[in-house]
Amino acid sequence: MLTCSVVGATSFTGNELIRILVRHPHVKIGFLTTRSEEHVYARDLVPQLGKANDLVIEKFNFRKVAKHSDVVFLTLPHTLAMGIGGDFYDEGKIVIDLSADFRLERSAVYEEWYHEKHKRKDLLKHAVYGLPEVYREPLKKTNLIANPGCYPTGALLGLHPLIKNDLIKRDSIVIDSKSGVSGAGKKLSLGTQFCEVDENFGAYKVNHHQHAPEIEQTLSNVAGEKVRITFVPHLLPVNRGILSTIYVKRKTGVKKDTLVKAFKTSYAAEPFVRFLGLDRFPTLHQVQHTNFCDIGMTANDKTDQVIVITAIDNLLKGASGQAVQNMNVRLGFPEEAGLMG
Amino acid sequence: MLTCSVVGATSFTGNELIRILVRHPHVKIGFLTTRSEEHVYARDLVPQLGKANDLVIEKFNFRKVAKHSDVVFLTLPHTLAMGIGGDFYDEGKIVIDLSADFRLERSAVYEEWYHEKHKRKDLLKHAVYGLPEVYREPLKKTNLIANPGCYPTGALLGLHPLIKNDLIKRDSIVIDSKSGVSGAGKKLSLGTQFCEVDENFGAYKVNHHQHAPEIEQTLSNVAGEKVRITFVPHLLPVNRGILSTIYVKRKTGVKKDTLVKAFKTSYAAEPFVRFLGLDRFPTLHQVQHTNFCDIGMTANDKTDQVIVITAIDNLLKGASGQAVQNMNVRLGFPEEAGLMG
Amino acid sequence: MLTCSVVGATSFTGNELIRILVRHPHVKIGFLTTRSEEHVYARDLVPQLGKANDLVIEKFNFRKVAKHSDVVFLTLPHTLAMGIGGDFYDEGKIVIDLSADFRLERSAVYEEWYHEKHKRKDLLKHAVYGLPEVYREPLKKTNLIANPGCYPTGALLGLHPLIKNDLIKRDSIVIDSKSGVSGAGKKLSLGTQFCEVDENFGAYKVNHHQHAPEIEQTLSNVAGEKVRITFVPHLLPVNRGILSTIYVKRKTGVKKDTLVKAFKTSYAAEPFVRFLGLDRFPTLHQVQHTNFCDIGMTANDKTDQVIVITAIDNLLKGASGQAVQNMNVRLGFPEEAGLMG
Amino acid sequence: MLTCSVVGATSFTGNELIRILVRHPHVKIGFLTTRSEEHVYARDLVPQLGKANDLVIEKFNFRKVAKHSDVVFLTLPHTLAMGIGGDFYDEGKIVIDLSADFRLERSAVYEEWYHEKHKRKDLLKHAVYGLPEVYREPLKKTNLIANPGCYPTGALLGLHPLIKNDLIKRDSIVIDSKSGVSGAGKKLSLGTQFCEVDENFGAYKVNHHQHAPEIEQTLSNVAGEKVRITFVPHLLPVNRGILSTIYVKRKTGVKKDTLVKAFKTSYAAEPFVRFLGLDRFPTLHQVQHTNFCDIGMTANDKTDQVIVITAIDNLLKGASGQAVQNMNVRLGFPEEAGLMG
Repeated sequence: MLTCSVVGATSFTGNELIRILVRHPHVKIGFLTTRSEEHVYARDLVPQLGKANDLVIEKFNFRKVAKHSDVVFLTLPHTLAMGIGGDFYDEGKIVIDLSADFRLERSAVYEEWYHEKHKRKDLLKHAVYGLPEVYREPLKKTNLIANPGCYPTGALLGLHPLIKNDLIKRDSIVIDSKSGVSGAGKKLSLGTQFCEVDENFGAYKVNHHQHAPEIEQTLSNVAGEKVRITFVPHLLPVNRGILSTIYVKRKTGVKKDTLVKAFKTSYAAEPFVRFLGLDRFPTLHQVQHTNFCDIGMTANDKTDQVIVITAIDNLLKGASGQAVQNMNVRLGFPEEAGLMG
Repeated sequence: MLTCSVVGATSFTGNELIRILVRHPHVKIGFLTTRSEEHVYARDLVPQLGKANDLVIEKFNFRKVAKHSDVVFLTLPHTLAMGIGGDFYDEGKIVIDLSADFRLERSAVYEEWYHEKHKRKDLLKHAVYGLPEVYREPLKKTNLIANPGCYPTGALLGLHPLIKNDLIKRDSIVIDSKSGVSGAGKKLSLGTQFCEVDENFGAYKVNHHQHAPEIEQTLSNVAGEKVRITFVPHLLPVNRGILSTIYVKRKTGVKKDTLVKAFKTSYAAEPFVRFLGLDRFPTLHQVQHTNFCDIGMTANDKTDQVIVITAIDNLLKGASGQAVQNMNVRLGFPEEAGLMG
Repeated sequence: MLTCSVVGATSFTGNELIRILVRHPHVKIGFLTTRSEEHVYARDLVPQLGKANDLVIEKFNFRKVAKHSDVVFLTLPHTLAMGIGGDFYDEGKIVIDLSADFRLERSAVYEEWYHEKHKRKDLLKHAVYGLPEVYREPLKKTNLIANPGCYPTGALLGLHPLIKNDLIKRDSIVIDSKSGVSGAGKKLSLGTQFCEVDENFGAYKVNHHQHAPEIEQTLSNVAGEKVRITFVPHLLPVNRGILSTIYVKRKTGVKKDTLVKAFKTSYAAEPFVRFLGLDRFPTLHQVQHTNFCDIGMTANDKTDQVIVITAIDNLLKGASGQAVQNMNVRLGFPEEAGLMG
Repeated sequence: MLTCSVVGATSFTGNELIRILVRHPHVKIGFLTTRSEEHVYARDLVPQLGKANDLVIEKFNFRKVAKHSDVVFLTLPHTLAMGIGGDFYDEGKIVIDLSADFRLERSAVYEEWYHEKHKRKDLLKHAVYGLPEVYREPLKKTNLIANPGCYPTGALLGLHPLIKNDLIKRDSIVIDSKSGVSGAGKKLSLGTQFCEVDENFGAYKVNHHQHAPEIEQTLSNVAGEKVRITFVPHLLPVNRGILSTIYVKRKTGVKKDTLVKAFKTSYAAEPFVRFLGLDRFPTLHQVQHTNFCDIGMTANDKTDQVIVITAIDNLLKGASGQAVQNMNVRLGFPEEAGLMG
């Protein structure tokens, strides 16, 4: 049985990884590590673990983790992950990085959006963007998986069938996303205090959120030309989940049936994408605590407006669930292993 | 002192009207009525009223209300308001109708969206749409005020400066709105049960909500030609407030400054619209329990995308507060009377 | 492999049973039934089920269910369960009834609290109250398990060690409970509308909730004499979970250590009760989506006041999780089967 | 017109004071000050203020405030208030201190609970505890008002009629309180992060919260002998409001009517206490955004248990509303001035 470790195990996404990996039938947990705290019991952060579970989260030690792990999940802040992730990669480990550090192909774009020099430009060409519905084949062969951002996952799964089949005007893409608060992580901030968020709602980083270049990069790759988007994220007073309402104009003459068929054929065989059909739309409740992305669609015959709505759990399909899905793809396990129920 | 009555006083909007009118310096309350319940104390529904307040909500009696009222607020379900509202109008009362019954100029459009014959087509030409920022002058002279819907109020205040000044492509309008639950009123429904709404979020009536024709009618009137919109409402797990994120393409060559100036000049003298300036955006907290509409704006020089975000309290600027503002306009009171603090 | 059916499968507790039973390693699902709706896919109510899951919830048919089931879970409204449950019992099935119908030993008490004649008084002596921590041995031998109410589960697990070891004054018991809204089930009611519950909090059925006699009956049985309690339930603006703060006076001379030891020895071997120790208290987050009951305790040396706080998920340890735990006990499966992770 | 200043104006309670004082008919605002930020517009923190409001919150300057103020409200952290409050008192100002610094009569008790030497022990004998329903007469004559804590306000108003009329066993008092999050103030903390509080509930500082000695002091003063209480606060996932469920045993022979009469006579003339009557209980919705304390009561004839439930808005009757009520009492204004609607 292969051994997985989680570096950054006290974060929300680290906690979810522990919960999933504990019951995964084909791997066992090596080390759970953190930067600052030592010897926290995992069961104190992951209540689903039983009384008898004695997994400990301990201080990070590169050599120990490297020696005993086949797969290393990194749930570290961006800019921190590239160094450590690169080191594990150099040791021949399979690295699944949940940060942004290896997602952008061009270091200049990374540096523009994250305001930090990229330390391991040499690895960018080896990294594969971990969206299995788009990049399943290359994911099977890489040791460096750049797990997508939470917003890009939902946005790309809603747009990919339309771009791939060349059904929409590429300069018309508007993505209006609404996210639960856990997307912001555990660090203290005024904006995530209960009294700020409760009974409130608003947009933030309007049209300059750092997830925009990921979305544009993937859409451009699929389209074969530069695609620009308009992206506005909003903060919802809920713990988990992202719903994205996507507005695009269809190309002249494209029929509703063609749009529907694009979704159906793209996702019929996908274990974790559920296309609900024409005029049926998802809510967050349908995807919370699951690894599913649910998608609905409609089109207006007078205005040619197409509306696609996608929903995911930001901590699962938007982070840790997708990371395990990527591991399953990479290691040839059934793709649902550890991720159902 | 003039006398106001509220017909439909047990509804959320009726409760808000009571709260406002009790402290309004220039009017007094005549009758508070309801269809089904008799002799409810208003203080049991409006906790801000003091122990000593002995206003009673009693069974509706047309003659009694008509005899003793100068102004009648109707907070009845649509299709019910047109008959009763018409009767009060015939008696020479000033009617402020919070339902949809007199908002649409053409009865055919009403019948298409509300699936009911219009009983008082004769009055439609006398009704004025009660958005003071657009129709202040005609409002001063009418006895039949059609108080706008909650979604249209926020959407129109965000779009009016752009349409009026001809700054945007009129076929590019997308309105993505998110509303608190009180907008659905007090009637029981599965969709407004706590366990359905809490920690949830989703769209409903995607691109076929009955508030769309109101928005299109007003924009078309201002533009002088038919304007179509894309409108998607969503349900937020909060009690009060609507935030609308509006996406439009500016016309070629229109500068950011011109856009900003359009908002500033439109709203500088408006008591209840606060334009926050370029790249500053409102949240629901800033407008809840107030009659303000707060507006922010940005534009993207690469894509020509303009993003306008507006926020209102759906029960105040989106309903009862605006109704009182309309009364103040109509009767020549200071427009803020009863509406501040 | 034994076959289980769920009668009442569209309820919240029915949905949880489906979710658990689908992944239970030792049983398979026979029929899922409902009174009113036919042929609903279970996956439309239980989002964790995969795309391929084709379980259907169909109209209840006694003969079909009886013919093909070894175990029947009933999640029906009380007064309805006794007839159907009795019929399944007569057919030799193992009946696990989540309603109140078989919980009270004396039909007179049932009729006082539920205002309905008991139809199957003959079965009351065969029913075992399904709290495994108290009645594990008799549960192994009965075919009629009366699954406890949600409030009693948390209250009894907090009090049982103290009563059993005769450490407290039995006339001093106050149970102040706070429950999430899902405890009220799916039926429409004014009190569970979002706008009623959100940002609100209050008590209901103050000192006359129908779960009080269950608690008194079990405590009295353990004590060997009539025990009376004061019980005040409150409604929390959360979906799931019950936290009970229990106040009792210790007997003169009982030491803190003795109290702690009573909890430790009672629960050391229990798979689903976690005693957190002196002065450590649970929150709902620690038990939601789990079958655990977490318990904390303190005592005041000046006042002899003992405070015990217990937390459970009302739909799991308070209903469906406990029902499956009871099935595991009855059938000799590992008690955690299907209930971890 | 007298002039009031608010020292600590950026806090939640400071914001509420601004909102109230702006519309108070008998006073005007002098200075609004803060320790760290300079020249914040009050309207940016208090959205109900209109566009035209140009009140500024500026850096605290003792001489400026002292020179131009008749009344000084202090909304500073405890231990900071005693120095500054003492200085204003020395200058002859009317000081209304919302911190704990002048609430406890004996400095030793203060030091035990707040872990800080008291700097102005000399003033403790001049301070009057600002609960008008208990201390109205002395409040009219003091220049140093110690505004009560939020929990004590609700607890004391529920217990005072019972203690004053000697109707209950004084060693039986249990106060189970549940508070909204704004009670914790604006400072960042892990425990008030949205993801911690949302969908959660739990107790904290079980039986050792610093508000306990205030409650015991006041009850002891009224009783004429030392009264001990059991007090357990809990954190609710709501913004505002405190509901306290109070359990006491009545003295032998005390009738239900006598209990009811005690509440009725105590509060008949009180403008801000609403006794709802026997078996009617308040919820938070009834008191939020008001200065009312609503009270319900029941008693059990078998167990002699009396249950009193009180509800307040922690920022109004529990803090800033009560502070203004105290000012009104002290200055001879109508007690409701500025506090209704």
